[in-house]
Amino acid sequence: MSSISKETLQRLPAYLRHLKELQKQGVENVASKAIAKVFNYTSVQVRKDFASISEEAGKPKTGFSVNRLVKDIAEFLGYNNINEAVLVGVGNLGHALLSYSGFKDYGLDIVGAFDINPNIKLVHGHKIYNLSKLESFIKRFNILIGIIAVPKDSAQDICDLMIGAGIKAIWNFSPCNLVIPENIAIINEDMASSLALLSQRLSKILKKEKNQ
Amino acid sequence: MSSISKETLQRLPAYLRHLKELQKQGVENVASKAIAKVFNYTSVQVRKDFASISEEAGKPKTGFSVNRLVKDIAEFLGYNNINEAVLVGVGNLGHALLSYSGFKDYGLDIVGAFDINPNIKLVHGHKIYNLSKLESFIKRFNILIGIIAVPKDSAQDICDLMIGAGIKAIWNFSPCNLVIPENIAIINEDMASSLALLSQRLSKILKKEKNQ
Repeated sequence: MSSISKETLQRLPAYLRHLKELQKQGVENVASKAIAKVFNYTSVQVRKDFASISEEAGKPKTGFSVNRLVKDIAEFLGYNNINEAVLVGVGNLGHALLSYSGFKDYGLDIVGAFDINPNIKLVHGHKIYNLSKLESFIKRFNILIGIIAVPKDSAQDICDLMIGAGIKAIWNFSPCNLVIPENIAIINEDMASSLALLSQRLSKILKKEKNQ
Repeated sequence: MSSISKETLQRLPAYLRHLKELQKQGVENVASKAIAKVFNYTSVQVRKDFASISEEAGKPKTGFSVNRLVKDIAEFLGYNNINEAVLVGVGNLGHALLSYSGFKDYGLDIVGAFDINPNIKLVHGHKIYNLSKLESFIKRFNILIGIIAVPKDSAQDICDLMIGAGIKAIWNFSPCNLVIPENIAIINEDMASSLALLSQRLSKILKKEKNQ
């Protein structure tokens, strides 16, 4: 249970979402085969994924306990420990992020939102602070996660400012390659990477259809 | 050059972005080591990635030709063939996607945007059509890519409607697990997966710092 692959980790939130649906429907036990079918995985894969984060073994006839899996996955993903984050950049994307109500379910709470434009004051119940307050805010509340949603030309400056103030993890939505020190975590929400993958899969499907 | 890993594919857009920057600065050749440093990869990794999509071999002293790599990566990613797409859901996220000017650089053109709300008429130069027109639009213009940015409760309905009309690739921004037939490509832009990864990396960093 100590090491887990990136692929497994990234599958966990979708499993959790599905298991919570089952929970709502009153389902108590589920077979790995049934879950595998929903996601188009093999049941071996599903059992392996569950084994890496839960000691719930699943019984041959009854399957896995839904409640137990929900509890174990949520705990593993840290959804019970809320992480506080700041967001910089309240343009269209920043608006979308602030309006997204699901973050708290995933253990993230945007406690401060910042923009350089002083005319933006309140967005979806979030008070928008002036960028000049960012550094002191991060220091004062000891915030560790910074979300960057500014245009790409200012993204590196914001990143440097955040790290200088004490941010340890960057969630970057700007389409640019940020330079960061080694001891900082970063996830790039890279539309171009996603599109590359989607285009490749589409080409494969079209080729297959052509050959049929 | 025929098979390429998902990981390599997802790294290509970032390489391309960096190489284009170098091109702008007038850099003609670049060593794999220099590129590796920017991305925190090993130079072996970088050379392997390049070898999988380009016959540009890179010379021991001069390095790789920047122009050649830019050309080969862009071609591989299909950025020279524009793919047409429809978008459904012009809420905050839909607004953000329509305002994003970078898609055309990545070979994607949103040619039709749709919403159920008839009061939304024009967003960032895109005419917004009523959802009732979606099916005939997809059929008439033979659109293959559908972008879903609606609330999760209507995502499956929109997905079914798209696929019924002829869509072959779904780019899903709704936080839900869509059920799709086998011959359809899908990419889920799953915030929860990203957050899981970021949280895990952050915990690792904090643990490391604690032990120092």
